Amino acid sequence: MGLSDLFDPDSIAVIGASKTPGKLGNDAMANAKEFDGPVYPVNPSGEGSVYGYDFVESVAETDADLALCCVPAPATPDVLQECGEAGVGAAVVFAGGFAEAGSDGKQLQEQIHHTAEEYGISVLGPNTAGHIMPHRNVFSSFVPGFDEIEAGNVAIVAQSGGVGVTATFQLDREGYGTAGMYGLGNRVNTDFDDVIPVLDADPETDAIALHIEGTSEIDATIETIHEASTPVVALKSGNRMEEFVQAHTAAPIQEYGRYEREFTDAGAIMADSMTELLDASRVLAKCPVPEGPNVGLVTAQAGPGIMMADYLQERNVNFPALTEETRARLDDILLGFTYDQNPVDTGRPMPEFGEVIDAVGRDDNVDIVLVYEIFEHSLGYPVEELEQLTNDIEKPVVFTVAGPDAALTEDRERMEELGVATFDTPERGAYAASVLAEMS
Amino acid sequence: MGLSDLFDPDSIAVIGASKTPGKLGNDAMANAKEFDGPVYPVNPSGEGSVYGYDFVESVAETDADLALCCVPAPATPDVLQECGEAGVGAAVVFAGGFAEAGSDGKQLQEQIHHTAEEYGISVLGPNTAGHIMPHRNVFSSFVPGFDEIEAGNVAIVAQSGGVGVTATFQLDREGYGTAGMYGLGNRVNTDFDDVIPVLDADPETDAIALHIEGTSEIDATIETIHEASTPVVALKSGNRMEEFVQAHTAAPIQEYGRYEREFTDAGAIMADSMTELLDASRVLAKCPVPEGPNVGLVTAQAGPGIMMADYLQERNVNFPALTEETRARLDDILLGFTYDQNPVDTGRPMPEFGEVIDAVGRDDNVDIVLVYEIFEHSLGYPVEELEQLTNDIEKPVVFTVAGPDAALTEDRERMEELGVATFDTPERGAYAASVLAEMS
Repeated sequence: MGLSDLFDPDSIAVIGASKTPGKLGNDAMANAKEFDGPVYPVNPSGEGSVYGYDFVESVAETDADLALCCVPAPATPDVLQECGEAGVGAAVVFAGGFAEAGSDGKQLQEQIHHTAEEYGISVLGPNTAGHIMPHRNVFSSFVPGFDEIEAGNVAIVAQSGGVGVTATFQLDREGYGTAGMYGLGNRVNTDFDDVIPVLDADPETDAIALHIEGTSEIDATIETIHEASTPVVALKSGNRMEEFVQAHTAAPIQEYGRYEREFTDAGAIMADSMTELLDASRVLAKCPVPEGPNVGLVTAQAGPGIMMADYLQERNVNFPALTEETRARLDDILLGFTYDQNPVDTGRPMPEFGEVIDAVGRDDNVDIVLVYEIFEHSLGYPVEELEQLTNDIEKPVVFTVAGPDAALTEDRERMEELGVATFDTPERGAYAASVLAEMS
Repeated sequence: MGLSDLFDPDSIAVIGASKTPGKLGNDAMANAKEFDGPVYPVNPSGEGSVYGYDFVESVAETDADLALCCVPAPATPDVLQECGEAGVGAAVVFAGGFAEAGSDGKQLQEQIHHTAEEYGISVLGPNTAGHIMPHRNVFSSFVPGFDEIEAGNVAIVAQSGGVGVTATFQLDREGYGTAGMYGLGNRVNTDFDDVIPVLDADPETDAIALHIEGTSEIDATIETIHEASTPVVALKSGNRMEEFVQAHTAAPIQEYGRYEREFTDAGAIMADSMTELLDASRVLAKCPVPEGPNVGLVTAQAGPGIMMADYLQERNVNFPALTEETRARLDDILLGFTYDQNPVDTGRPMPEFGEVIDAVGRDDNVDIVLVYEIFEHSLGYPVEELEQLTNDIEKPVVFTVAGPDAALTEDRERMEELGVATFDTPERGAYAASVLAEMS
């Protein structure tokens, strides 16, 4: 019952399922069909089957524990009542037109809230794009293309379905999947503080990315962030657009400073943009927590290395002096390299570049290893040296890649498999290192 | 002679050309071979041919007006002397080990400076990755893969070759080419103030992206920016890493504030990261200059729209009220849309989305049109409506795309062809609009 049916259903009913392409109930079926267990398209006027599943007349005829409600707002209270009577434990309500839409909508939302409490149904939404959990083949959303999202280790919890969808596809475009996307919408009884503990306990989720416009459950949310051992990154949105936000997810008007202050105190990283939200989550999901904030920067090209060093110094990140031992080793490898301190600059890619990273990575003064190198086909990236290094040390390694797209793909994927977080512009690599420094 | 041979050569000599893969003189030949005119691999010990071009013994045997010097620093003064005697008008010196490398290097640089002045040779570098001009099939660089860079309309002028290379490949990865990349390196006699006027006059260059660590020609550079009618975007680097910067391109130590203040006064946009540098350049190269700073934001998803509005309001960008006429038209199109002011939120993609953009774009209060929409296969992007709109109005249109990569490509390219600048995250679209507002 309840949350467990939302996160780990055994069977799914799609209420309002349709054979007509472009209809919500058809788009939802196109995603739900990926589920390994029973899927029931529910529609009293449905004939035959849709995506190979036979229509049923009513949710009462099913053993579904998760229901996807593809009906307009006014029909939702009755549908939810039927779900309750049929023993459904969780429901996703896609429709808008509830608390965000004025007093009639507020009343409708109160009705479904009442029904949900009466039957112990966990309702995701209303006014949501739904949720997906690729590890479980659960794609309970109307968003076309969501059935092709791969499994990853970053979970996205978004107040706005549109933000959740945007984030999911952004990860996808860059070659990453997601551990799950949860669009909370109007949060009738499933709010941030309900979802965060479940994800914290989920072995597939290694970082939690939050998009928040505002919640009345702010204290409980802060408490769950504080208690989570899984890293949490948060983007607070709607700081300047109060009226627009109210019309969106019926979020309460709250001060941004409070979120920033209290979330940070609770151990969360505050992100300023979609890219920062995902990059911070990716690096925290991929890398061990560093023991300290000291960055060792190794670059094969001075110019981008200087840009990264600038970025980090502006954020008060420290580049410690390297030990005598490391410097001696670097002297053996590089006979007069361009810049012989931290940052270490090798001038250009070279066969020994992996050894240079290794020397800096093993330096006792270095807690976080940050690398920049433009890819060259004849050399490739130093994957073997990184494999040895990441086996031997428990430090985060961030590798900033550059070069032609096609050349990068393979080595980049191999590095990710080794636990090296990769980013593709100087500022993104530097940002990731600054997040690690902040988490230390 | 001089600059014209650097920017528009009739024939190219590659001095130190080599048949051995991985050698600088081989990598440079691999790129130079793309040139439509004569290419001369020069090497007294070269036998036969390389990439189909017969070796010649000396540059004196050629009519080359551009020489690529693939020899180490100590050999460079003699090579440049031979170039001068042979009537070469411009030379690219790749080697490092000059002014950035201590007193011996400084002396070498003074020698080549003297020779360059004596013979009127424009020297690019030393200590540079070279330059490429895809429109002219000139790829005078040792960077593998540069011969495949497509022609575009943004020129990159980078003090650091590594930054120029990084920027070029970053544009390439996102599907854009470049009007040219110019790595200035140690700027023996070709500095920012020499290159900017040439690019300002170049019909292929619609925006100039500058990466600057520091130049003694700062006053002359500011003057050329002031006089340029082509938009200029600048990234000042090395603000915190003075010693590292000195060891890189022998840049003088200068205050960041001076660059920011005086470049901005001269009409340049100051960028804070590689992505900002390229995005600002792309949007200014693509779009007309707006008549005012007022943004009309149309979004198909409220959440990302709120993020963009936040971003812009934090930068004091204004969202004007729409005219009565526009609101009446929007009322006809959308019977009760989610948020009926500027920003306009349609709740989700719909067939009428193009009409909504059209209505906002034609509003007299709106100077800059900013759009956000997650791509849906069944609808596509409103390319036809945008074609009509961009034909009828002289306002910049920025379209922020989201969704699965494969789905975006085609419509995105069609929009770019119409003069619509496209960006792929909420913050990048919003940043582009903020740049336009600043330029107005």
